[in-house]
Amino acid sequence: MNKTVEFILKRRSVRNFLDKMISEEELQTIIKCGLYAPSAKNRQNWHFTVIKDKEKIDEISQQAVEGMKKIGLDKANDCHIFYHAPLVIVISSKLEGYSEINAGCVVENMAIAAKSMGIGSCIIGQTRYLYQQAPKADVNSLLKIPNNYEHDVSICFGYPNEEEKDAHPRKEKVVDYIR
Amino acid sequence: MNKTVEFILKRRSVRNFLDKMISEEELQTIIKCGLYAPSAKNRQNWHFTVIKDKEKIDEISQQAVEGMKKIGLDKANDCHIFYHAPLVIVISSKLEGYSEINAGCVVENMAIAAKSMGIGSCIIGQTRYLYQQAPKADVNSLLKIPNNYEHDVSICFGYPNEEEKDAHPRKEKVVDYIR
Repeated sequence: MNKTVEFILKRRSVRNFLDKMISEEELQTIIKCGLYAPSAKNRQNWHFTVIKDKEKIDEISQQAVEGMKKIGLDKANDCHIFYHAPLVIVISSKLEGYSEINAGCVVENMAIAAKSMGIGSCIIGQTRYLYQQAPKADVNSLLKIPNNYEHDVSICFGYPNEEEKDAHPRKEKVVDYIR
Repeated sequence: MNKTVEFILKRRSVRNFLDKMISEEELQTIIKCGLYAPSAKNRQNWHFTVIKDKEKIDEISQQAVEGMKKIGLDKANDCHIFYHAPLVIVISSKLEGYSEINAGCVVENMAIAAKSMGIGSCIIGQTRYLYQQAPKADVNSLLKIPNNYEHDVSICFGYPNEEEKDAHPRKEKVVDYIR
């Protein structure tokens, strides 16, 4: 098993981070790996919003919690959707087909690159709940999502404040063959 | 730059394959890396159909081309949506939220693992066009997609029959910061 396969198999969502920003070089490597994801017809029709401002991260989390409460999802008031990670990246795309598949490739590239550098990450879908509590234009402005782009997903990063754990056991019998 | 980051940055869709199956060990590593993708709430609610039967691969491609023609997409009759790759994996999911993001993570894990082993891959969305030319139940039966699962995307693999090329240049000005 080569190191790359090992990192892929050992990646696991991290939800407990040190209160310390990753280095600028590490950040730029993570961004670059996201940019090098495949995209349908090589459109690269995505946008990344990189958020290092702790107050802004907290505000976004708080608004997501408000949105969840508004649609009846039971979330404690002190829930932090980014687990107090020091860095968040929001992915958005032009809607030209396959944008969520593309966005999945983007965040997975970022997550594996992070793992290979000893950085933890967690993919976060809950930023979509911001749209439950404020007009779309306001949310897109807060998240710096460009005009005509749609929110896809977010991912947060930081140095893990926990021991490395193995990935969860995988479900069995999910592969069929046509030989 | 570590080797994993290098593979991520050098991965590029391959559309020209040797007429030779990858080894069973390589195949199982690729499948395992797909299975170790993250999924929303760790549901792992996906299914993989691994297709090594050349006649079946050709049949699926032909039906996709029929579907494309039926909705007016101009595709030559000799188009092969898998570029005659010897191996195809079709990803499907239960619809429980975020399934396309999850599927993107699955195929990207597979693509990077393949790259790290010298195997080329291309993510293929066009299997969705099969549903344009036959009833859903028939297509799902052909693709061995389980009941209550939905087609997400496919990916094909093989040893590259071309020189390694750099990735396409990336679009600029797609990253904004909130510092």
